[in-house]
Amino acid sequence: LAVIILPARDTPAALRDVAAHGVKHVVLSAGGFAETDEVGACIQQELLDILSRYHVTVLGPNTSGHVSTPVRFTSSFFPLGEIRRGNIGYIAQTGNFATFTMKYILSSECFGVSRVVGLGNKIDIEESRALAYLGDDPETHAIVMYLESIKYPRRFLSVARRVAQQKPVVMLKGGATTAGKQAASAHTAALAAEDRIVDGLLGQAGIVRLQTYTELILAGKVLSTCRLPIKNRVGFLAPSGAMLVVLSDLCTRLGLSIPPLCEETRERIQAITPPFIRIRNPVDIWAAALACGVKSAYATGMEALLEDPNIDAVIPIFMLTRETGMPDDFSFVADLAQRHGKKPILISFTGDKECMDECRSALEPLGMPTFMQIEEPFYALSILYRCAEARRKSRCRSED
Amino acid sequence: LAVIILPARDTPAALRDVAAHGVKHVVLSAGGFAETDEVGACIQQELLDILSRYHVTVLGPNTSGHVSTPVRFTSSFFPLGEIRRGNIGYIAQTGNFATFTMKYILSSECFGVSRVVGLGNKIDIEESRALAYLGDDPETHAIVMYLESIKYPRRFLSVARRVAQQKPVVMLKGGATTAGKQAASAHTAALAAEDRIVDGLLGQAGIVRLQTYTELILAGKVLSTCRLPIKNRVGFLAPSGAMLVVLSDLCTRLGLSIPPLCEETRERIQAITPPFIRIRNPVDIWAAALACGVKSAYATGMEALLEDPNIDAVIPIFMLTRETGMPDDFSFVADLAQRHGKKPILISFTGDKECMDECRSALEPLGMPTFMQIEEPFYALSILYRCAEARRKSRCRSED
Repeated sequence: LAVIILPARDTPAALRDVAAHGVKHVVLSAGGFAETDEVGACIQQELLDILSRYHVTVLGPNTSGHVSTPVRFTSSFFPLGEIRRGNIGYIAQTGNFATFTMKYILSSECFGVSRVVGLGNKIDIEESRALAYLGDDPETHAIVMYLESIKYPRRFLSVARRVAQQKPVVMLKGGATTAGKQAASAHTAALAAEDRIVDGLLGQAGIVRLQTYTELILAGKVLSTCRLPIKNRVGFLAPSGAMLVVLSDLCTRLGLSIPPLCEETRERIQAITPPFIRIRNPVDIWAAALACGVKSAYATGMEALLEDPNIDAVIPIFMLTRETGMPDDFSFVADLAQRHGKKPILISFTGDKECMDECRSALEPLGMPTFMQIEEPFYALSILYRCAEARRKSRCRSED
Repeated sequence: LAVIILPARDTPAALRDVAAHGVKHVVLSAGGFAETDEVGACIQQELLDILSRYHVTVLGPNTSGHVSTPVRFTSSFFPLGEIRRGNIGYIAQTGNFATFTMKYILSSECFGVSRVVGLGNKIDIEESRALAYLGDDPETHAIVMYLESIKYPRRFLSVARRVAQQKPVVMLKGGATTAGKQAASAHTAALAAEDRIVDGLLGQAGIVRLQTYTELILAGKVLSTCRLPIKNRVGFLAPSGAMLVVLSDLCTRLGLSIPPLCEETRERIQAITPPFIRIRNPVDIWAAALACGVKSAYATGMEALLEDPNIDAVIPIFMLTRETGMPDDFSFVADLAQRHGKKPILISFTGDKECMDECRSALEPLGMPTFMQIEEPFYALSILYRCAEARRKSRCRSED
């Protein structure tokens, strides 16, 4: 393997050199090719001519390279230090996931990655090949993609259909709008397709579409820690009626259902709740917390929901301040997760920021995903659920 | 003023007592009225009968009370400590803003409040009256509302139209969906209206509608620190082509435009940028940061955008890691804001979480709003812009 980090104009000669010396794999890091101007486009054409003469596999140009944590390797020029090993694979038509977005993930989140591929201008390795590789990779349990264009749509569809039956694949497509397309052209010389066609393609491929950059991180986090839920039936607890209302609205918008509780579940939570609160789903938990303590109320409420056969995932919103009582520890949440491993538990909080940070620091290293904004666990669950649906549809189709 | 914190069944007698003794203003804190069951509904009817006999103004029941920072007063039972004085007024059909959501704002944000009114079941004081009061209140520069129902829609429309000409009014309406309406009925006995009617009413009233609970905090933050922009033309800088692409898509979805730069602006930024990056709006700033330092590149880029007559607001996404160089201080951002006070500057970042926190801690106390997720300054700017539009339309209508 050779990594060439030279200005665009010096890159073709260097590529020819290493190829002539028998190097089979090359990463081309520099920018300044088709994404910049006519001159750059000509240099990129030179690279293609070299490719057609030598048997050499090229990543880039215009890429920060790749990462492979199982073999502790990176071709990235960015000083990331040790990259945390995990089960998420990133395929990105940007260098961010081998540079500063990875830095953000390493410094702010607890999940790790298996492989990261920064595709750049993809004169050789493109998304279909990268996806096929990660699809077969036993280190990679879920694949998160960022693309600005799809080079060979037919090939991509056929690869993605196969991979999406095996593991979750989610994607943010940059350049969905005219303004985004213009920026994409300046970024990776991408010619973005009509967005409805992309939508249709991803749907057929069994790939779940994301809407924001932040969801690329959210998806990695939740797919690395949670199983896919059986169905979309969520049970959630919050310390506030208003939160229950607006989060119910959010569930509807996200396609999550809030089923009635089994009478047994309802009675278990009602038993610790003063009578002026009538327990239903979603669960108004604060009166119980005042009556029997924050930890005990949430533990009872969460366990009852987890054991309810009509519930597929549980979201507690903890209310944490010293004045109202911080749980002495949060291991009860991890215990619940262990005993009910099939149902995702996604955690958020409100109250004193310091207490929220404390809860996050306690739970995330135990593999429990927490979210600083109360809407985020619902976005995350919706990603999980759509992945489950996409897989089911993919498998049905393959049986037809 | 009397604050009655007794169980629902004991509340009518206590209200009668204090009213008979000449108390003119009463806060009724307990829950357990119409939101709970038939019995509670009967007790609430008793309260109404008392109201019709005595000249007494009632807030609640089922409320955490109110806050008035200019006179350092609160009727809330929640241990909040000193509540930060500021220019944002909250009117909420929930107690959260006089309890734990205020705790969150106090511990996580830098902005302060003028008044907070928790409406509860609003047997007397309702949203129209609270809005009229805050509309005339010189301490309140912008009003953030959370409602689950609108008691007197005609009165509300007429009050809101007047207030929205004077100051920004934004609202989250809980109970927009069937699931949300059911939760609202259990929360404040609210009978939520058909959502399209609410949409029409708010549009006519000049009130900007929010979509999530987190935006209630985001809106308070941005309205407390920024002027409304003249138009919707944003200039933004990011360290990454992919971010420029997806944030351009986001701008389109939010109704923000990304105009071409004046040639002079373009040349100023191009002058510090290596030629392989062609400067345009949005601005790919990282090559310049590598060439002349992070602080110098962002300062030059931001100043050029702020001085461009085609740009109404500027959003820098800082890339912060120790390895790539942290600015020695961030006061240049506050300096820029002071010299270009009419144009909002909304800040976000990526990179090392610790460095991001450091930047936030430096800028927020100076009145510069920062956002931990790169999409948030765009949501915030869209709120500001929609407030500006709503005001313009309100004023046009009043001149007709």
